[in-house]
Amino acid sequence: MNSFGAVFKVSLFGESHGSAIGVVIDGCPPGISVRPDDFMGDLSRRRSGSKGTTSRHEADVPEILSGIYNGFTTGSPITIMTRNSDKISTDYDDFKSVPRPGHADYVAGIKYSGFADLRGSGHFSGRITWGLVVAGVIAKLIIRPAGISARLISAGGTDDIDLALEKALAEGDTIGGVIECIVTNPQKALGEPFFYSVESAFSNIIFSIPAIKGIEFGSGFLAASMKGSVHNDSFADKTGRTLTNNAGGINGGITNGNEIVFRVAVKPTSSTGVQQKTFDFSKGDLTELRVKGRHDTCIALRMPVIVEAAAAVAMADLLLIDRGINGSRNP
Amino acid sequence: MNSFGAVFKVSLFGESHGSAIGVVIDGCPPGISVRPDDFMGDLSRRRSGSKGTTSRHEADVPEILSGIYNGFTTGSPITIMTRNSDKISTDYDDFKSVPRPGHADYVAGIKYSGFADLRGSGHFSGRITWGLVVAGVIAKLIIRPAGISARLISAGGTDDIDLALEKALAEGDTIGGVIECIVTNPQKALGEPFFYSVESAFSNIIFSIPAIKGIEFGSGFLAASMKGSVHNDSFADKTGRTLTNNAGGINGGITNGNEIVFRVAVKPTSSTGVQQKTFDFSKGDLTELRVKGRHDTCIALRMPVIVEAAAAVAMADLLLIDRGINGSRNP
Amino acid sequence: MNSFGAVFKVSLFGESHGSAIGVVIDGCPPGISVRPDDFMGDLSRRRSGSKGTTSRHEADVPEILSGIYNGFTTGSPITIMTRNSDKISTDYDDFKSVPRPGHADYVAGIKYSGFADLRGSGHFSGRITWGLVVAGVIAKLIIRPAGISARLISAGGTDDIDLALEKALAEGDTIGGVIECIVTNPQKALGEPFFYSVESAFSNIIFSIPAIKGIEFGSGFLAASMKGSVHNDSFADKTGRTLTNNAGGINGGITNGNEIVFRVAVKPTSSTGVQQKTFDFSKGDLTELRVKGRHDTCIALRMPVIVEAAAAVAMADLLLIDRGINGSRNP
Amino acid sequence: MNSFGAVFKVSLFGESHGSAIGVVIDGCPPGISVRPDDFMGDLSRRRSGSKGTTSRHEADVPEILSGIYNGFTTGSPITIMTRNSDKISTDYDDFKSVPRPGHADYVAGIKYSGFADLRGSGHFSGRITWGLVVAGVIAKLIIRPAGISARLISAGGTDDIDLALEKALAEGDTIGGVIECIVTNPQKALGEPFFYSVESAFSNIIFSIPAIKGIEFGSGFLAASMKGSVHNDSFADKTGRTLTNNAGGINGGITNGNEIVFRVAVKPTSSTGVQQKTFDFSKGDLTELRVKGRHDTCIALRMPVIVEAAAAVAMADLLLIDRGINGSRNP
Repeated sequence: MNSFGAVFKVSLFGESHGSAIGVVIDGCPPGISVRPDDFMGDLSRRRSGSKGTTSRHEADVPEILSGIYNGFTTGSPITIMTRNSDKISTDYDDFKSVPRPGHADYVAGIKYSGFADLRGSGHFSGRITWGLVVAGVIAKLIIRPAGISARLISAGGTDDIDLALEKALAEGDTIGGVIECIVTNPQKALGEPFFYSVESAFSNIIFSIPAIKGIEFGSGFLAASMKGSVHNDSFADKTGRTLTNNAGGINGGITNGNEIVFRVAVKPTSSTGVQQKTFDFSKGDLTELRVKGRHDTCIALRMPVIVEAAAAVAMADLLLIDRGINGSRNP
Repeated sequence: MNSFGAVFKVSLFGESHGSAIGVVIDGCPPGISVRPDDFMGDLSRRRSGSKGTTSRHEADVPEILSGIYNGFTTGSPITIMTRNSDKISTDYDDFKSVPRPGHADYVAGIKYSGFADLRGSGHFSGRITWGLVVAGVIAKLIIRPAGISARLISAGGTDDIDLALEKALAEGDTIGGVIECIVTNPQKALGEPFFYSVESAFSNIIFSIPAIKGIEFGSGFLAASMKGSVHNDSFADKTGRTLTNNAGGINGGITNGNEIVFRVAVKPTSSTGVQQKTFDFSKGDLTELRVKGRHDTCIALRMPVIVEAAAAVAMADLLLIDRGINGSRNP
Repeated sequence: MNSFGAVFKVSLFGESHGSAIGVVIDGCPPGISVRPDDFMGDLSRRRSGSKGTTSRHEADVPEILSGIYNGFTTGSPITIMTRNSDKISTDYDDFKSVPRPGHADYVAGIKYSGFADLRGSGHFSGRITWGLVVAGVIAKLIIRPAGISARLISAGGTDDIDLALEKALAEGDTIGGVIECIVTNPQKALGEPFFYSVESAFSNIIFSIPAIKGIEFGSGFLAASMKGSVHNDSFADKTGRTLTNNAGGINGGITNGNEIVFRVAVKPTSSTGVQQKTFDFSKGDLTELRVKGRHDTCIALRMPVIVEAAAAVAMADLLLIDRGINGSRNP
Repeated sequence: MNSFGAVFKVSLFGESHGSAIGVVIDGCPPGISVRPDDFMGDLSRRRSGSKGTTSRHEADVPEILSGIYNGFTTGSPITIMTRNSDKISTDYDDFKSVPRPGHADYVAGIKYSGFADLRGSGHFSGRITWGLVVAGVIAKLIIRPAGISARLISAGGTDDIDLALEKALAEGDTIGGVIECIVTNPQKALGEPFFYSVESAFSNIIFSIPAIKGIEFGSGFLAASMKGSVHNDSFADKTGRTLTNNAGGINGGITNGNEIVFRVAVKPTSSTGVQQKTFDFSKGDLTELRVKGRHDTCIALRMPVIVEAAAAVAMADLLLIDRGINGSRNP
């Protein structure tokens, strides 16, 4: 089940401390101009380094293995990978018997009967999102002239993000945040009426990103408190533009041409430096744990570009499956 | 794209004012006891009639066309339908040129180049959820001993739901609400590590339900304001029980055995009796519209059972695709 | 797994002696003119009645439940069914313990742990192909100007089909046959280079039809005896027309614009009136069996239209998934 | 569409003269012992070198990128690749305007609007089967105790294969062949009753292998000439063993526990050294062509292990999706 998409299919592979991580993209149309440098902008946005992000340094240079030739997509599967380096696996040795609270250690151990590669969280690592960002770069080219832009609008409960970061760093703790993403100039009529609505496609892939625990479109949870007469977006002119955008650009699961707007809630990284209670499953006793190693104080800082990539991949698939006005076979 | 699930596949068909609506369920294991009466409890919860719901009366008696024989599932596709009746299609004649704000009229017209059956909103109607509730009844049998329970926890911004309803009825307006759903005693280790996480599967199907605009798991959007040391759920004993459940029973996209908890935001029904501005696309002028006909003041009242059904279908699929510790599951 | 297609998805439901059989077609573009009478030509070709076919009489009138409105496809799922009638279920009572040789009785009993509906072979019945023929009628409209034509070219080992039928009827036995199918004027460049080649898609759906045991494209098995210099089809002009068509219109899994030609082998119906040895699984003894009831002497007589339908469905899906010259999103 | 399988999903990537080729396997259960040496046996059977095979030398050492840790599958996606080497791309320069008869040059040029990487036939190359053989090694471990064995039973129309090879080498021509594949000790009750029958699954993947133009199960095309009373396989004892095996181990699309037997027709390689007519699409004239470079005289010699791999992958998927008696299968 490790792929997303019906026609534009993205598969991710790799473990955090394995040999390499990467992505296979199937269903990409031929003839799209893609050069190695095209990936560097989004990949550098994803990379750690600034205040509040891990000191693990990843070179992250993409190697194109297939599907791109002479600077254009060929129509056959695109495979792009990068080698893992700067990995210190000894950080992770004890978590099988004493799983970190809030982390995937416990479930990964159970799900795969002890066979999962848990070093650096293995396939559960946020590192796997590298391939999603790579796929997003190509998806963004496909969905033009639509554009996607996400940003962190709050962290630790405040929109004064620097303040929140400094406080968390001082406490050795971690904080979450809220990211808002906007798709400008989206194609109209994307999405299917019941299953595979726009919200279904977006949320499906967005919740694949580690640490995301909520999503809302347009007015979202606030809409539950609004009256219909207030929430409804009045049409303003023959382009279908609406005076308000409480629907976040989506009616009945279908894009209406107005901006797609959604927000996601990112939980605080579970690997906090603060002492925590947990259970030692080998000894059968309660115990305490303080997570060492290099971790992100606020993983949400690095996630806007990942959210954009996920949205772009969902948009590209919705566009390529459309049999109506965005498809060629409408009689 | 009108199906959900990788192994337990649910497809819905029908239009609000067409001949019939129904569901095809493929991938259901053989030997599950299902009697016609088993559907009536959940179907009656979905039905209209109480204060704040439409006066359209649907008999909704399910007719089993295939896949159930002598009171047991056979292993071949299950098809169940019901005839549409009590439909008054003349209510809907003008919405092609003067689309209702907040409604699917506009996008359906564009997406299908004028060929969509828009009577009663056609395939975009909430009526299509009848088949999802039917599928949910069977899914609930498959996922036992897990149980699912959803309820409306607020409407119109207050937990005093009656008060909110009376106010909205008096104003001729509509209101939204928030539904909380809990899966008790869930199987551990369901979900895939990246794509098809538990949150992905649940949100994918949940956002297929008309009028839902947000979903959050566990602490959800509140988690974005919490510190990691507070958000992390400490393991309490060897069963994997946690002292808190901020994760909503899901770590790294995988069930950890604690209750799965999520909430969804339901927007107010767009068909409000209050006068609204809109655009007349045939005349090219701004105009006003007051929606007549029989509609729900608070559609969220009828939705808990639909949310349960969606969650049950997602759980059943996650269970039947699991190749790990749940891989041996047979009825 | 009871559906075929990536974008043009066909699902079949029903059992031979159940309430109804039918088909759900998802992914059909909107705006295709389909009238109830359009189905009758192909359905009557499928029907029994002539020499060598069963005396079971099926009215087979299709009832459109969804997805077609005012004579056009709407873009939402199309569901079409027909009621079963003229069923005599007592014919089938003994086959659970004494399975008919060559029939699905034995495997159906095992696969579904005794829960399968075996009356009239249940979901294994050739009757299920009714829905495939219905889907084929719509698929044929989608793939225009391509046309599909299949015919029985031999039966019982001879191209003198009448002679073979008379002999088999006299002996109370059954015979098989070979059907040749030709797609004229096919779209070029359909098919994917590795998985989902044209041959893969066609054979995948063709082998879903009961009783088919072989398929070959172009020169097929004869090609294994040919030299490359003879087998290769020389290009004749700028249209890509070839002087010979040993490839059956397919190179590298992709249509080259020449006629698609394939042949399928249909085995003799297993339900023969001749006395046969079998095993009584309840008594644990060898026994003998003579199958009574109404059966086809040569089921291959009724199958050309079914083979056409399967080919049309495969073509329609290949056409609708193409991202190259048959798709709209080729930059 | 470049993947096969519903639960055990195999995706292939790479081009003949690109950087690397490989395979991603998703859905493999955890805990299967796989060591790098396990691949070498089947990979060496696939490799060229003997009489009648190309002189291109491929080291073919598999590099495991993900999904296998400490000698066991982890449950997350398995990625295995090998670098391309010993590639002489200048051999292929002229085929865009003067496509080789019988080859994919023409269709690849059209399908991908000139963007396909045609060096060494790119993604259409038989080289891509390397990844299928790798997947087959793992699939063979999953389906144990079933075993798979394929062999070339005729070439150039005779079972005296050496004779046929020497004649073809002397003529500078190429020849095809017939491969027979047998699955011993197969699990019973695999396959779905209509779509995704065993024959559908097998033929779907088998026809992905370049150069295969026909497949038949059990008696296959000969069955079309047989009487039902002769073709039917009588049950012999309570194990379900049959006295004959004309069905090739499959009734109603479902395995009956007897050996699965099928044969495939392999056409002669299109790249023959004999002078051939073709068309020069840039000049608009008929022309002649003699293909130079290193090619296989009888590609069928190298294909039994590829056919085995394809069959193993299909079996593994059928096994892992079964919800009936095989539903409990875990390593």
